[in-house]
Amino acid sequence: MSFTGILPGLTAADSDQFESSLKKFVDSRELPLYKIMAYHLGWVDHNGEPEPAVSQDRTHGQIVLASAQAAGSDSAAAMPYAVAIELLNNFMLVHEDVQNANTERNNRPTVWWSWGPAQAINAGDGIHAMARISIFEQRNASGPASDPRNISMALESLDTATLEVCEGEYLDISYQERASVGVDEIVDVARKHGALMGIAAKLGGLAAAADASVLVALYEFGQAIGTAQNLNIDLKALWPDPGTDRTEVQRGRLQSKKKSLATAHAIENGTPTTRRRLGEIFMKRVLDPADLDEVTEILAETESRAFAESRIASLVDEAITALNSTGFSSEHKSSLTESAKLIVSSS
Amino acid sequence: MSFTGILPGLTAADSDQFESSLKKFVDSRELPLYKIMAYHLGWVDHNGEPEPAVSQDRTHGQIVLASAQAAGSDSAAAMPYAVAIELLNNFMLVHEDVQNANTERNNRPTVWWSWGPAQAINAGDGIHAMARISIFEQRNASGPASDPRNISMALESLDTATLEVCEGEYLDISYQERASVGVDEIVDVARKHGALMGIAAKLGGLAAAADASVLVALYEFGQAIGTAQNLNIDLKALWPDPGTDRTEVQRGRLQSKKKSLATAHAIENGTPTTRRRLGEIFMKRVLDPADLDEVTEILAETESRAFAESRIASLVDEAITALNSTGFSSEHKSSLTESAKLIVSSS
Repeated sequence: MSFTGILPGLTAADSDQFESSLKKFVDSRELPLYKIMAYHLGWVDHNGEPEPAVSQDRTHGQIVLASAQAAGSDSAAAMPYAVAIELLNNFMLVHEDVQNANTERNNRPTVWWSWGPAQAINAGDGIHAMARISIFEQRNASGPASDPRNISMALESLDTATLEVCEGEYLDISYQERASVGVDEIVDVARKHGALMGIAAKLGGLAAAADASVLVALYEFGQAIGTAQNLNIDLKALWPDPGTDRTEVQRGRLQSKKKSLATAHAIENGTPTTRRRLGEIFMKRVLDPADLDEVTEILAETESRAFAESRIASLVDEAITALNSTGFSSEHKSSLTESAKLIVSSS
Repeated sequence: MSFTGILPGLTAADSDQFESSLKKFVDSRELPLYKIMAYHLGWVDHNGEPEPAVSQDRTHGQIVLASAQAAGSDSAAAMPYAVAIELLNNFMLVHEDVQNANTERNNRPTVWWSWGPAQAINAGDGIHAMARISIFEQRNASGPASDPRNISMALESLDTATLEVCEGEYLDISYQERASVGVDEIVDVARKHGALMGIAAKLGGLAAAADASVLVALYEFGQAIGTAQNLNIDLKALWPDPGTDRTEVQRGRLQSKKKSLATAHAIENGTPTTRRRLGEIFMKRVLDPADLDEVTEILAETESRAFAESRIASLVDEAITALNSTGFSSEHKSSLTESAKLIVSSS
């Protein structure tokens, strides 16, 4: 269950303005291709007809806005960057749904399930291109955000982060075929995925034309959040929040045998018998619910859940510590700190 | 059978330098993800071991170099753009192979067939990001090519073209489900796909810091080639070159019921009986070889092959005419003209 509200420090007006900027950017285009994107983003139904908006996770875009405000910019200057990173995040989700064969996301059929894998791959590619096109709108901004060097740095940051996420995704998929994956390997993959939230925070700094040291601190802040979030998603897939069922996305991750920090810990620290039992389960082509129960049972024995939770808590601390050097006001630091905790705990 | 040689006007040294720039750009990265890319680009085998290079179509990159030379630049200044467009083209091929379930390309197993669809989608996304990263190398170039405004225009052109290809791809896939698709609709889709070659030629002009009017002419030149090439690929799938079998890629296009200019012409101009026969064939879930024989028989009756060939020839003329206003030397015009004919006829 990801966070679908408004992050601390941002107003309802910030959130509304962001949503309408995102919507305007997609709706300004006519072809049915953009209806698929609008569907994925929660604004229209399968036929392209408006439907009551489904609240979705917009934390990537919101972190851009919150970081920009902390670094002294207004939301307007950060808006094209917020739109860009949110689109980048969503292009990856559309492709992840094909890759993991998820039939549902946000309680609605996924793009590939509704339009087929070929259209979903293509729609994702289109959203990827659009993410970058949004950044060019920054040229029309007023103030330091429109400085060509800033825009160029934003574009390059975005591409570098995308490639880093792809590197992480490569490892993630290849680890599905291996029984034994180490704790450090799992954390490395999560850090690569965390590049996306790292860039989100950095883009906020770029919108405020912040100093290089602030940009570095914001990147570290965001990347630590993204890393912790990524690790926690796999943990929540094993142990869903009380009173909730596993979502389709969580089931997709487990059934495709994504390794978690907890399973890696159990493999490194369990007895030979534990390791053999886990190995046998992960050698199966597809995992069924009984297998998952056995996995969580083993992880209880090895105290791997507590290990993973404590590692995630350290990453949240790492995010908060990164803010120390920024010179942000204590009010902004506190909002960003609360945001970090919220994003990670609701992942 | 696409063109795998060196385009007229370019030297073997140009071609070698381009290939080694492309290779260096991919090989400078360490992870196995980049081995998948190197495999797709024809330099290593499935295990990442060097193998005798398989000649591949590099016409997108070569058109950048040839256009740059015609517009007065040297190859070195155009190299990062040539690498970018070739990577962009190849990201699309990797995804097309997943979309059409092609098991082979260039007589070797495709990426998805070797590593699975999830890795192939991811590898394509990574190549997409890398295409843009190559453009940032232009900042280190000497001369007008390193002008930030030029680089920014190159980046935006690339994204706009990518989105246009995605729009075309959306239509292309959705037409697979329709029996009746008009000639104009087919040409519109091909024009959107042609945006890629259009941008290739324009990037050559940008590397030479050419005037706006030359950039427009180069785009028109490239787009007309790309459009004609795209239409001819579907025609060659119906009627392979004498003495050759259909390639896997051609079979993939036919079996996924991609419509061609020739079938669209037959549907618009055939008798009601012709239309009903074609409609029945295209309503099948999958087409078998006997269906394809019947389609080509019908298209012979309606003289649709001749119609399509003449339309493609007009597009080649359109490409050549676009060069008139450029002020290029007659030698360069003649090389570009020959290149246009070669690329289209070998598509």
